Amino acid sequence: MISKAKAKFIKSLQLKKYRKDEQCFVVEGAKGVSELLRSDYEVVWLAGTDSFLRSIQQGAAIAATDLVEASEQELAALGAFTTNNAALAIARMRPNVEPKLNDEFVLVLDDIRDPGNLGTIIRTADWYGINKIIASEETADFYNPKVISATMGSFCRVNVYYTELHSYLTSKTDWPLFGAILAGESIYNVNFGQKGFIVVGNESNGISSKVLQLIEKPITIPRIGEAESLNASIATAIVLDNVFRLKK
Amino acid sequence: MISKAKAKFIKSLQLKKYRKDEQCFVVEGAKGVSELLRSDYEVVWLAGTDSFLRSIQQGAAIAATDLVEASEQELAALGAFTTNNAALAIARMRPNVEPKLNDEFVLVLDDIRDPGNLGTIIRTADWYGINKIIASEETADFYNPKVISATMGSFCRVNVYYTELHSYLTSKTDWPLFGAILAGESIYNVNFGQKGFIVVGNESNGISSKVLQLIEKPITIPRIGEAESLNASIATAIVLDNVFRLKK
Repeated sequence: MISKAKAKFIKSLQLKKYRKDEQCFVVEGAKGVSELLRSDYEVVWLAGTDSFLRSIQQGAAIAATDLVEASEQELAALGAFTTNNAALAIARMRPNVEPKLNDEFVLVLDDIRDPGNLGTIIRTADWYGINKIIASEETADFYNPKVISATMGSFCRVNVYYTELHSYLTSKTDWPLFGAILAGESIYNVNFGQKGFIVVGNESNGISSKVLQLIEKPITIPRIGEAESLNASIATAIVLDNVFRLKK
Repeated sequence: MISKAKAKFIKSLQLKKYRKDEQCFVVEGAKGVSELLRSDYEVVWLAGTDSFLRSIQQGAAIAATDLVEASEQELAALGAFTTNNAALAIARMRPNVEPKLNDEFVLVLDDIRDPGNLGTIIRTADWYGINKIIASEETADFYNPKVISATMGSFCRVNVYYTELHSYLTSKTDWPLFGAILAGESIYNVNFGQKGFIVVGNESNGISSKVLQLIEKPITIPRIGEAESLNASIATAIVLDNVFRLKK
């Protein structure tokens, strides 16, 4: 049985304000919760169907009192999505800490507002082995339920560090800075080398002028047809594929 | 002034059943409506802000009686989205007619259920110059407001033909049939030639077994990191980029 207070608490975590206060977020669905349980995130509460709980009984580190059996209907009613056939968990947020960079590629998101786009970008980054993302403070919140859901579990492996991009990037001028714009060098010809920042801009406005002036390597996806632009998560994926295609 | 009957009619077009009965669909927002007015779709009714209507006054072929000035609030209340700062139009659907194929690449969608994914795929196809898509009957409806919105105007240039895929593809055995699966030839090595069908499967289940048995050229996006899979619209975009990158 799930108490009304617990249900209300879970609902409150749909809002960033309450997530920030409580330092907790919600993960929904079999895929996300399974990956959460294998990750180093602290899980503070878990509800699952009988069959889901049996499938993970090898023992995630959760006290039995924080483990509740629930029907699919109860799970869907608790969460942000209309269906949920397996599980819902509350986990502890990680602190927003600047990552240490190695020789690697790092995505920089300049104001990606749509949670679905951010989640999809995180999933795609994970596919290509990128696990560090630097995001402007206006970028959608990593712990938004729509972001977590769209990552399909990749939120466990990819970290997003929120910061003021202009200051951050000016402190890293020894790193190549690629930026996806509409009039740069073709991504088919760019030599990406072995490391760098890849900046992707806002869905409507692209890269902000403050960040744009720092870009030393503007890059572009060549267009053949008529569409005026590409969706931000699509453009990110195509760029990443071109960064990594020769490294495979 | 927009009558209650008109508002109700527009709301009804959010449902496929009523779109089918009326053979009409709704386009919302400046970008979509502007492209609609430049296309050969028949526009049967248009509401716009004063500034939008002035911007298109060069004369779309609409009778003045079917042209209504409205505030942003009225437009948003009429449509499927929470904001609309410019215009909303009702247009006539096109008949579902099998397209004549030239030597070209044609996308085949085997049960893409998410309207956002379908819209994004249409937009991306348009970017790469693909204007014919063949879709299974279970694929999301082209005229769904979320599809139309996500195409960002590309619905005017890309046609989707709905049909039973197995029969359709068995009638076209002289065409190369590429299918995106998890264990095929690397897209970095495939010679795509000058024409072919590119099949993309359902978000959860991939290509259906009936269609899978017809695929002669299974292709795969090489993975470097840990994500189990890619979003369907992302995978489509990466494949298309690899089909066209050498043709540019």
